[in-house]
Amino acid sequence: MLPSRFMSLSPSHLDELRALLGADGVLASEAARFTYEADGLALEKHLPDVVVLPRSTDEVAAIVRWARAHGLPVTPRGAGTGLAGGASPERGGIVLSVNRMDQVLRVDLERMFAWVQPGLVNLWLSQRLAPEGLYYAPDPASQQVSTVGGNVATNAGGPHCLKYGVTLNHVLGLVVVLHDGVVVTLGGESCDGPDFDLASLVIGSEGTLGIATEICVRLLPKPAAVKTMLFDFTAVEAACRTVSAVIADGILPAAMEIMDQHTVELVEDWLHLGLPRDAAAVLLIEVDGPAVNLEPQVERITAHATGHGARSTRIAKDEAERAAIWRGRKSAFGAYGRTASGFYIMDGVVPRTRLAEALAEVYRLCAERGLECGNVFHAGDGNLHPHVLFDADDPAAQERALEASHEILRMCIRMGGTISGEHGVGIEKRPMMRELFAPEDLAVMARVRAAFDPDGLLNPGKILPGEGDGHASSPAQMGGMSVRADAEGPWI
Amino acid sequence: MLPSRFMSLSPSHLDELRALLGADGVLASEAARFTYEADGLALEKHLPDVVVLPRSTDEVAAIVRWARAHGLPVTPRGAGTGLAGGASPERGGIVLSVNRMDQVLRVDLERMFAWVQPGLVNLWLSQRLAPEGLYYAPDPASQQVSTVGGNVATNAGGPHCLKYGVTLNHVLGLVVVLHDGVVVTLGGESCDGPDFDLASLVIGSEGTLGIATEICVRLLPKPAAVKTMLFDFTAVEAACRTVSAVIADGILPAAMEIMDQHTVELVEDWLHLGLPRDAAAVLLIEVDGPAVNLEPQVERITAHATGHGARSTRIAKDEAERAAIWRGRKSAFGAYGRTASGFYIMDGVVPRTRLAEALAEVYRLCAERGLECGNVFHAGDGNLHPHVLFDADDPAAQERALEASHEILRMCIRMGGTISGEHGVGIEKRPMMRELFAPEDLAVMARVRAAFDPDGLLNPGKILPGEGDGHASSPAQMGGMSVRADAEGPWI
Repeated sequence: MLPSRFMSLSPSHLDELRALLGADGVLASEAARFTYEADGLALEKHLPDVVVLPRSTDEVAAIVRWARAHGLPVTPRGAGTGLAGGASPERGGIVLSVNRMDQVLRVDLERMFAWVQPGLVNLWLSQRLAPEGLYYAPDPASQQVSTVGGNVATNAGGPHCLKYGVTLNHVLGLVVVLHDGVVVTLGGESCDGPDFDLASLVIGSEGTLGIATEICVRLLPKPAAVKTMLFDFTAVEAACRTVSAVIADGILPAAMEIMDQHTVELVEDWLHLGLPRDAAAVLLIEVDGPAVNLEPQVERITAHATGHGARSTRIAKDEAERAAIWRGRKSAFGAYGRTASGFYIMDGVVPRTRLAEALAEVYRLCAERGLECGNVFHAGDGNLHPHVLFDADDPAAQERALEASHEILRMCIRMGGTISGEHGVGIEKRPMMRELFAPEDLAVMARVRAAFDPDGLLNPGKILPGEGDGHASSPAQMGGMSVRADAEGPWI
Repeated sequence: MLPSRFMSLSPSHLDELRALLGADGVLASEAARFTYEADGLALEKHLPDVVVLPRSTDEVAAIVRWARAHGLPVTPRGAGTGLAGGASPERGGIVLSVNRMDQVLRVDLERMFAWVQPGLVNLWLSQRLAPEGLYYAPDPASQQVSTVGGNVATNAGGPHCLKYGVTLNHVLGLVVVLHDGVVVTLGGESCDGPDFDLASLVIGSEGTLGIATEICVRLLPKPAAVKTMLFDFTAVEAACRTVSAVIADGILPAAMEIMDQHTVELVEDWLHLGLPRDAAAVLLIEVDGPAVNLEPQVERITAHATGHGARSTRIAKDEAERAAIWRGRKSAFGAYGRTASGFYIMDGVVPRTRLAEALAEVYRLCAERGLECGNVFHAGDGNLHPHVLFDADDPAAQERALEASHEILRMCIRMGGTISGEHGVGIEKRPMMRELFAPEDLAVMARVRAAFDPDGLLNPGKILPGEGDGHASSPAQMGGMSVRADAEGPWI
């Protein structure tokens, strides 16, 4: 008999599930289930009663109907790279992994879209389309492992969403299994259908409104040319102000990323990429488009950086050097993971024009609690990712780190920003929703959610603060991230 | 006593409304109410019981609460330039005109957004921002008169939405009065908030989910330079293929518009702009961006057009010539209005790659019914606007015109397109929703709508086909547009 908060799954229940999916589609052993108890937010671990691995929309619908008949929650899961607990089955029940739903169903090269299954790894799609000169633009740093379905669930961003937009901007339509197993198509292959924009509503809803089982994504022609620049500064504020100056000049780079000194040191000590270890900050700027357009942009961007005190300018001379620069950026998360005893990583947004001010506040909030802090962030979007470091053997330090993280998000709200740029709400940010939204705003979200899932069995408890979910007044309930990865994790 | 389908408004009712809004905020005379019985879809005329003109969110909330207490429908209305009957009070009750809510509430030049009231005329916003070098990108052809609120209600497009996207892509947040007078804020000043994307849901919902009373719009820097080209062809198919070829070449113009021979003749006979009267089609292409980027694009676009048989190329040499070219394009609707005895105008979308094929089918569907047809359309988006002409004194011809219009939309669905590019559903397209969507898809839309408006008093009957709303099987119920305007109406 398996432990569950709600019920125990009997051998006959498991047999019913195996009849629906085949024996290899049902994972019931404790060892197997442990793999699915958490996503990247290791603070929140909840063992599912059973894990199912459907292969098709019909199988997902069958599972949802079966779960509803038995009153069991269903928590969909992509690759589990989320950082807010969205894929952790907080109330037990079924984890529905889409990992075997990894097919590209149809590609229309002329109309430039593809229907894919949700378990398809983000990067695989672009790799498959490379010979055609097309790609899928959203590039969360986790794209080597995270799935298109998981990206849809969190409305994932990425370094290039400054220019190209987030997942929402690249999904044309969804096939969705609703709470009762009914299958609907939301949106389609054309933009701007004459319906309530339910596809946009489902994107970012973390599986609480339905389970997307087929996804129609927009494909883009690969940019004809790319230029990648790296500037280093003796003050992080100067890097931030360069970002504002470039945008104010009417230039829209594909990406603008900043790493502060702590981050540069960790990455350089690990990977030896030739980054300036003594820089207070490095600023990575990439522009893309027709080749003839890029040189003038590179010149103006360089002038802005130099005018703001950049010590040096490095422009990638070939694809290998570009890849090295990006490897440095995308390895930041792993660099913290391999050296820090413990850290929390936040995902807050401030107006781009207030980046320098916000960053100073981040350092101050940590310093006054005796904590170190490193920053690597999507500067173009004002999307901060403070890494608050602590000694994992010191519970008081961990508590102070949680408190600092909490205060960082509060500062984002005060500055006119928000509490998540791309990681979603999940469990972690749920109590903060009460600080960001008025009760009336949350009430209408709850009504919409109930319209989709009246029984509340689809990823229950996520996103919206519920009666039993506590309030943000307790820092320990605010959550944060403690890191398991020690590999070159590309998750931020 | 006033006539109403539901109730009669007594003098004391009107006094209550005047107490809420002041005497000049309530229009009750029959003459005044006649002005509000229809929008651009003159087929559907429904007299409101009363028209109210609030000035603020609080006044809108007060009206909605009052209406609910009396069981009266509330139909919000912008400038009434809609073409699908969305602003016509089909079930009587209150028309809530936002025309006095025309203020720019706040502009943040640094963060590049503005909070505006819904009655602000679209073009006024860009005019006001011109000294700052900023503008509001969505430019429905009605922008000289239509309001930002009306644009939000229909998720309006426009010639430049090929590059810049539709209203949805430029609205960051909304203050919305719900069915019970509760005021909520959806979205905000930052992109990608961590909530269910309810702002996107409300945009395009034609006032059925709530009434937007404050709108936060994104502002963009004006393009540094613009080049406007006009090509003429001896076959409309060649113009369509040029559009596909340009996009396939990786160029994204700001606008790509086609007018067919019938349209060019009407416009030229009226305005004498130097358009080639004998051309089978003219293709207007505009590119914008940094000046240094434009010349290579103009060269490649010209090469594509010439390669597809363009007889001549005209490139606007100054702003006056550019304005003349655009005046020709934007006067097409008025040109039909001043010459045709009667016509219906459709708003269908097909994949851009099937434009030539779709257009041939449009001509065929009209010809086989003995009808003339003219076309002016957003070619870059595959958004067709066939004008089906008929003799207004011949009821049989009118019936055939409705039937042809209906078949045109059916063809759009068959080709993988949709039944509205930008005009919305309103009353006109409502029965067609059953042909575009499965019953399950419509049911989930209805559930969401009920979650927002359980009593069904916000613009009731619009968008979703209801029990009493008839089916698309009767062409006469499909609707279409018969035109009142004889001025230089810029509505398409």
